[in-house]
Amino acid sequence: MRLATLPDGTPDGRLHLVSRDNRRCAPSQTARTLQAALDDWARLEPGLRAEQEALDTGGGQPFDPSRALAPLPRAWQWLDASAFDTHGELMARAFGMDPAPRDRPLMYQGLSDRFLSGTEDVALPSEDDGIDFEGEFGVICDAVPMGATPAQAAAHIRLLVQINDWSLRTIAPVEMKTGFGWVQAKPACSVAPVAVTPDELGPAWHDARVHLPLVIDWNGRPFGAASGGEMAFGFDDLVAHAARTRQLVAGTIIGSGTVSNANHATVGSSCISEVRAIEMAGTGQIATPFMAFGDRVRMEAKTADGQPLFGPIDQRIVRA
Amino acid sequence: MRLATLPDGTPDGRLHLVSRDNRRCAPSQTARTLQAALDDWARLEPGLRAEQEALDTGGGQPFDPSRALAPLPRAWQWLDASAFDTHGELMARAFGMDPAPRDRPLMYQGLSDRFLSGTEDVALPSEDDGIDFEGEFGVICDAVPMGATPAQAAAHIRLLVQINDWSLRTIAPVEMKTGFGWVQAKPACSVAPVAVTPDELGPAWHDARVHLPLVIDWNGRPFGAASGGEMAFGFDDLVAHAARTRQLVAGTIIGSGTVSNANHATVGSSCISEVRAIEMAGTGQIATPFMAFGDRVRMEAKTADGQPLFGPIDQRIVRA
Repeated sequence: MRLATLPDGTPDGRLHLVSRDNRRCAPSQTARTLQAALDDWARLEPGLRAEQEALDTGGGQPFDPSRALAPLPRAWQWLDASAFDTHGELMARAFGMDPAPRDRPLMYQGLSDRFLSGTEDVALPSEDDGIDFEGEFGVICDAVPMGATPAQAAAHIRLLVQINDWSLRTIAPVEMKTGFGWVQAKPACSVAPVAVTPDELGPAWHDARVHLPLVIDWNGRPFGAASGGEMAFGFDDLVAHAARTRQLVAGTIIGSGTVSNANHATVGSSCISEVRAIEMAGTGQIATPFMAFGDRVRMEAKTADGQPLFGPIDQRIVRA
Repeated sequence: MRLATLPDGTPDGRLHLVSRDNRRCAPSQTARTLQAALDDWARLEPGLRAEQEALDTGGGQPFDPSRALAPLPRAWQWLDASAFDTHGELMARAFGMDPAPRDRPLMYQGLSDRFLSGTEDVALPSEDDGIDFEGEFGVICDAVPMGATPAQAAAHIRLLVQINDWSLRTIAPVEMKTGFGWVQAKPACSVAPVAVTPDELGPAWHDARVHLPLVIDWNGRPFGAASGGEMAFGFDDLVAHAARTRQLVAGTIIGSGTVSNANHATVGSSCISEVRAIEMAGTGQIATPFMAFGDRVRMEAKTADGQPLFGPIDQRIVRA
């Protein structure tokens, strides 16, 4: 099943089913918004799937991904992990800090009152803040009880999404060294237009990981195509970690952290900061700057046979 | 103006005006919910104030603080600072960490999809997690533009609240050492029943600080009465800090962090962890345990002349 949210003048937008080729869509008659669907997923899913099947036989209206909002334009909770060991090692090097322990997932709570669409301009105050992208995958859950095991948590993973977790690298290590996590270093994230149920990935979804490359271009030049499969903890572990001492509200989004692979020399990276850390380790000199106003970044993960899935994130940085 | 939210079967509850003695209340005809009032505060405030004046002349229904929900039963954003230097010093000692730098506010983003009422039981999974309370003051803002100065930010502080930021001390230093801030160590907070406009405090609100003691009893025994006036950064600074790289959504709640005074030997503390750090520094031995299931904590800040203000937080810890 493929879901998108189109603007209708309300903060949560209007839920639509999207055809399996991402070319047509139809407003859901089962739920007005994605949040409403998630609030009562077990009961509403059959109706949504019937709508998907009907749409896949034809009809609906053209789907323009550039018109879509984020699937959840706002959410009650956004928790972002850092589940790729290679990313953790490179970032510790970039920030001059000891690598964090790996015996438990790393996770912070971030801004969730707004998620940017995959195509709107990203307004930030200063190039001096070290503007960087972070290509990620994420899951959206319905309500998860406190103390859920990873196996129980897995059953609450209802949708998969593709995220750009915008980061300000000049501020990040300053906030990180306090132990309090990030506030200023983490402005609103962007989310690709289509949220999909895990079955849309076929065998590319297993071990609670997205085994697909996230293809990233910066200003039209290839930057990375690392796979989501190399997570040290699966999304089932991440959801259970988050639910250890809290009930997770329906609509909780949990991110993988920057997709990063051990063979980064071959597949590239999903954020600029990693590239700078690799340059520093290699030549002692940083050659790659952070983003400038006017720069664009494009991110897209397609199915194993090259068909559209989440749709693209393709955005420009502008001065706030 | 005094505002409370009473249950009506919806997640956001029903906004009520509360009389200046906290004894009577009436449903607002200006806004159905506190979030709705905050979404359009500048336009709605005159209507709300007219309702307050009418209620203060008589009428309404009895106000039972134990029936009230948190003023905002859920919020799009909760950012908690640590603005009392004494708290920072004692916690660094308790956790065996270097004190954080003091040249900028410390702040993390926390769970905001639910706030417990001031009287409901607090269900937590294990006494081994080191269950602790943290008595705080907080502000609720309407929308704040990115880059607002402290003076501009001050104009967006619409309401003051009294908070218990529940903390799990066995987990807190483990999460803090990763630099990612707290997820498991910070379950849902509790909020006292009445949110008040700053003018309700008279001269006790100045320098964007609450100059009132927060009186805390643990299992009926006096525990602390530290003043909110000793913040190293005022709430205006905290709101501006939060808005440096993001627009703040209407209904953002920003906390002071644990109220803590340099003369803690006289006024006591607002969390158990501080007392344990003081014991350790004094005698080398910790005498005070964290909370046990069945324990109660009560917190209340009254006006300078001893009248009710936010109403009490008075809760029991139970096993989840």
